[in-house]
Amino acid sequence: MANEQLEELRKQLDDVNLQLLDLINERARVAQEIGKVKSAQGSNRFDPVRERDMLDTISENNAGPFETSTLQHIFKEIFKASLELQEDDHSKALLV
Amino acid sequence: MANEQLEELRKQLDDVNLQLLDLINERARVAQEIGKVKSAQGSNRFDPVRERDMLDTISENNAGPFETSTLQHIFKEIFKASLELQEDDHSKALLV
Repeated sequence: MANEQLEELRKQLDDVNLQLLDLINERARVAQEIGKVKSAQGSNRFDPVRERDMLDTISENNAGPFETSTLQHIFKEIFKASLELQEDDHSKALLV
Repeated sequence: MANEQLEELRKQLDDVNLQLLDLINERARVAQEIGKVKSAQGSNRFDPVRERDMLDTISENNAGPFETSTLQHIFKEIFKASLELQEDDHSKALLV
């Protein structure tokens, strides 16, 4: 009984993982577009004020169970990865 | 023109952020349920084989633009946070 329940919960988790995967990559695509616009404008890709705003929005909308600090840590990793992706795009653009 | 485009892309990013927030917390709730079942079974909450399987599934389903290694790094942070949440629940249960 407990094993069946565990299997069912694991299926739910696998499903959420795939949704998360798609959404993180969707976010990356939007961040890449932003990187292109900023690059064309000649503005800096890293914007600490904008990043702070996004972290505050996470805090305001967090219904749990994760603590806000935990979520902000995870989002900072996503922001960092997005910035690295934008920088890779920029380097490639310079090489063309 | 570029500023309007930037605003529009930022709105899209904010929307994706909120969807991610909900999904990460949904994942945490499922992980908490799994923790409860495993706790009742007396089995270990950390299962390296299951974690490896989940990371392999990420790799198999990654359509980019993020590299698989980047996604696996982000997911490992989410796994770690989920495990900490399960351990908190377990400690609280012991205190009852």
